[in-house]
Formats: sequence, C-alpha cells, structure tokens
Amino acid sequence: MSQIRQDLTTQEWVIIASERARRPRQFAEKKPPQLPEYEPSCPFCPGNEKMTPPEVSALRNKGRANQPGWRVRVVPNKFPALSPISRKREPERKLLDGFFRQMEGAGKHEVLIETPKHNQLIPELSYRQAEEMVLMLRDRYRALRELEYIRVIVIFKNQGIRAGTSIVHPHWQIVATPIVPQSLRRRLAVATRYWDDNGGCLYCDLIEAESKSGQRVIEEDNDFIVFQPFASRSPFETWILLKEHSACFGHLSDRRAKALGRTLKRTLTRLYKVLDHFDYNIVIYTAPIRDEEEEYFHWYLRIVPRLSMIAGFEIGSGIFINTALPEETAKVVRRVKI
Amino acid sequence: MSQIRQDLTTQEWVIIASERARRPRQFAEKKPPQLPEYEPSCPFCPGNEKMTPPEVSALRNKGRANQPGWRVRVVPNKFPALSPISRKREPERKLLDGFFRQMEGAGKHEVLIETPKHNQLIPELSYRQAEEMVLMLRDRYRALRELEYIRVIVIFKNQGIRAGTSIVHPHWQIVATPIVPQSLRRRLAVATRYWDDNGGCLYCDLIEAESKSGQRVIEEDNDFIVFQPFASRSPFETWILLKEHSACFGHLSDRRAKALGRTLKRTLTRLYKVLDHFDYNIVIYTAPIRDEEEEYFHWYLRIVPRLSMIAGFEIGSGIFINTALPEETAKVVRRVKI
Repeated sequence: MSQIRQDLTTQEWVIIASERARRPRQFAEKKPPQLPEYEPSCPFCPGNEKMTPPEVSALRNKGRANQPGWRVRVVPNKFPALSPISRKREPERKLLDGFFRQMEGAGKHEVLIETPKHNQLIPELSYRQAEEMVLMLRDRYRALRELEYIRVIVIFKNQGIRAGTSIVHPHWQIVATPIVPQSLRRRLAVATRYWDDNGGCLYCDLIEAESKSGQRVIEEDNDFIVFQPFASRSPFETWILLKEHSACFGHLSDRRAKALGRTLKRTLTRLYKVLDHFDYNIVIYTAPIRDEEEEYFHWYLRIVPRLSMIAGFEIGSGIFINTALPEETAKVVRRVKI
Repeated sequence: MSQIRQDLTTQEWVIIASERARRPRQFAEKKPPQLPEYEPSCPFCPGNEKMTPPEVSALRNKGRANQPGWRVRVVPNKFPALSPISRKREPERKLLDGFFRQMEGAGKHEVLIETPKHNQLIPELSYRQAEEMVLMLRDRYRALRELEYIRVIVIFKNQGIRAGTSIVHPHWQIVATPIVPQSLRRRLAVATRYWDDNGGCLYCDLIEAESKSGQRVIEEDNDFIVFQPFASRSPFETWILLKEHSACFGHLSDRRAKALGRTLKRTLTRLYKVLDHFDYNIVIYTAPIRDEEEEYFHWYLRIVPRLSMIAGFEIGSGIFINTALPEETAKVVRRVKI
C-alpha cells in the first residue's frame, strides 16, 4: 500500500508509491559524454565574452570588463523572458475584449556564469568558488530588488537536458518579475495561516521537527540544515534551510552566504556520489520584495533531481508520484563520505 | 517585449516570450521509429490479456472476458499508485512526530486501452472507436464515484516518452483519489470567487469571450468549443469545453460523450497535421464528487503538447514561459483541412 503525504508548506499531496520503488542506488543515470574544459563555440567560455551582452558584474583575477580573467561573471540573458522598462513607471496593463488580463513583460533576466570552465560542476568547484557563487547570487538579488517595479526575484539553475538547460556551461539564472507568482502566494498564505494557528513560523517548526526526527536529515550545523522532505515530490529531492528565521535570501550575511556555498557543494557532492550522474534544478524560494521582513515566511533552497518525467497525473492533479521513500534515500546520502 | 498573461481559471501568470518564438510549423518534432500494429511483448496487445490483472470492463466483438475480441478494454493498473480498501471505511490517517501528515494510499488506478492496435493513435481511430473511448471513460467515472472514500477522479493520458508514458500502446489512466488536490481546490476557489463577483460561471463567460473573439478558436459547434487559451502555458495547448454548464464529466449524456470523442479525434488530427509528430498529455478537470452539482465549476479537457522541458523557472515560480502566441498557432491549426 502506498502512502499519501502532505507537503506542509503548500498543503499539496504526494503519493509515495514504494511498491514501484527502485532501490536508492538504482536511480543512477547513464553518464553523458565527457565535456571539454573549454569549448570554442560556447558563449560562456573565457575569450567569448563578446558573445554575450556586456557583463553587469564579475569577480576577476585580472583583465577588464568583458575580457577573460573572471572567476564569476553575470550577464543579461541574450533572449530574456522579461525586459527592462523605465524605473519610473509600473508595467502597462490591459484588459482585452473586456475579459483577458495582460501585462507588459517588464523585468530583468540575468545569467550568472559560475565558473570559467565549461565542464566544472558544483562538486568540482573549490570551496572559495562555491562561496563566491552564492555571494554573487545574493548581490544580484540586492541589486535587482532596487528596481521599483519588481515584486519577486526568482533564482534558479537548470543542470542538464532533462532539467531544461539549453547551454551546458554551468550557470544560474535570475529573473526579476513585476508579479507575485501564485505558487509563492500559496506558500505565503499557508505559512501565514500556520502562524495564526500556531503562533510561530512554519519553517522554523519544520526545521525543529526534521532535526528531532533525524530520519531525513543529510547534515546539520549551526547555520544550515539539509534534509530530504517528508513529502518529497521526486526521489532525492533535497532542501537547504537557514536555521535562523529570515524571509529573504538577500538578507544573508557574508559569512552565511559563504557557508551556504560550502553546504551546497557538499550536498551536491553527496548526491553525485550516490547517483553518479543526474540532471537537476535548483530553485530558491524567497519572499516578495515588499514582504522581506515578514515573520511568516522563511526562504529556502530546493534541489529537484529530474529522475522521472512530469506526466498527465501530475499536470492534471498537481499530485506527484514519488517512487522512493525519503527516509531510505536520505540514509544512503547521509552516509556518503565526503 | 514579451507579454505576461493571466490564466483566469487559476490566476497563474504565463510569460509569452514571442521574441524567442519559432514559427508555428517549426515546432514539429522528429518522428520516432514506426511501431508495429502488434507487439508480442506488449501487455496491452490482444492475445496478451493474461499479462494484465483481470479486466474490469470491455466492449467486445466476440470472445469472453480476458480474451481477444475486445475493442476497448479497462484493467486495473498492475503497479497502482493507489490501492483499494474496504468500502466501509475512510483511509487511515496519521500524524507522525506530532507534525507530519500521512494518509493510507487508498484509491483505484485503472488503465483504459483504447484500441487493440499497438500503433493506432487517436487520429487513426474510427469515429465509432473515438466515441466508444469517451463513453467508456465516462462509464468508469460513474463506476468509481460509487466508492465512498473517493473524493476526486483524475482522468489523463500520457502520449509519448516526453509526456511520461512507459507503455507505448495507446491508453488512458483513471486514478480515483481519497483527497482533493490543491490544484483543483484552487480552480474551485477561483471559480467560486468569480461567481460571487460576477453572478455567473467563469467558464461559461470564458466560452462566450473566446467564441466572440474567435482569434484562438479551433472549432465550435452546438455542443463543444475547442480553443487555445489566452494564457496557454505551452505552444499549441488546446482546451475543449462543453458549452452547456456542467461541473461533472460523469454527467455527459451518451450523445455528448460521442460528440466529445469525435471532437477530440478531429482536434488531434489537426494538431498532428501541423506538428507532424509530438508528445502530449490530456487531462480532464472535473469537480470533486461531492461538488458535482456545483454552479461554480465547469469541467474541461486540456491537451498539453510537450514541446519544451519544464525547467527551474517553472518549478520555482509556477510561471510558464511560452514561446508561441496562441493567436498565431490557433490560426494555423484552425486552417488545417480534415
């Protein structure tokens, strides 16, 4: 008999169909062909800086802007989903045929190139590189939040074809949107209601419950806890939460941003050791800019391995079917020596 | 500049990034290898009836149950996501560690094999087969709704690898769940609020607005309207709505179930003619069983072509980026001669 588990942060249900389950080690995917360290046609490789729009920020060992010598580089997306408008106005809104709502696609869409090396995955970054990657993500959050018409900043990473990447050179994307997505509104509403019912932050209580249970925890230190959530939507889904309450990723201190970089590197090192190769998304959920000071919400980072396809049942119901028990996968990942 | 459009049924936003767009005909996918009409190892092919659990229903030309001679066949899923419990009780619920909510995976999971032919896609069904397919889906809805512990019936189809299918022989799946998925709750809440604000059904008004605008309509007759929604989440997304108000798919009359079968066959014929080959999901949204008589909700069928991957932005924000304007794709599909 399978189990139906509730994700307390969204109140969505997940079916854990353990009869269908593979053993944790059987989720490993076929390794794709080895990539070179440098790829002449890659717009994100050093020497090809002219193939991207001019950089908005970089950390460099040497060289001038838009020349080689950078360690981390941020550029506008050449094919942005959203484009900047004047600071001084809100995006134009229209009601078409008296019924359909449309808004100008105003916003910013940036790309953070996390390494000059075409083939360097997060586990292969030095600790310093991992630290600088997160520091730069935080700094871009802080820069983009200053645009008056921006409401939410979505930070994510697509690693591999199954995760929807189109450029293989490792990178993050940062999209600053003028709207609040429903999926974030939902999380805010659920957390607010939890606060009203319980007098405290849902995520702080979740951290305490996961830590106390320990079954799904991968690692925990003074700053962060890493666990595979009770209602994981897919095998090996992994969350990283700051233990101190904070609604806003952009509020991370330098010290903690660096600690997050190291924690993320360690976590992905563990996952790669178990799964050998896998495609994944990373997403950071952070409060809308005008709710950054909220007591109710708590930012978090989610790693979503893409080991199965999203099919009709998930599209039709929003209920995911997970074929692995997080307690079993977490045990394997926790025991990895790094 | 891209556009941000609101799906009025969920209030979710979609980015239509038309600068990134391919022309409608450029979405065609590479055709996979031709399949045989009969595949000896396929559990859904005639003669292999013993490879599935015993059938729960079938339409036959000849033969006894679980023998060849059927035109449409319904069997329990051999690897069910949810499994039956006694009619007389509700699924067992638990609160683990005083915090985590879990429920017994109670329900039913059926497979409807829509054709004896291993390679027969919906456009290649006869009109009679298409009619019988929908009649049988409706009949299974009616049968499964009688289980006391069932709250919602999710009907869907995964066509092709990118749509998450594991068995290529054409089939639908029917999952009867003891819970109401959040994605359906959301649609109900939005529609209820619309009713309270406007004094009428959101979907009935949507039908009227789409019909009047005409830009996104594929076809319309006295019973059904077929259109590509204003806020399509992916290129060529297509909805079919019954024009008369009804919250429940199971309430379809024989005559209209047959008409839906023919409409679905025609619609997929058009889409295949434009896209040549494509993978897709079909999902039917219908009211929870205890809300079947609602004035607020209106069942509908959604065809979701899987032409791009769901990536980090969609996972993190719930906002989809669509690279085609539905007005443009609908025009091409509408003009297809069938």
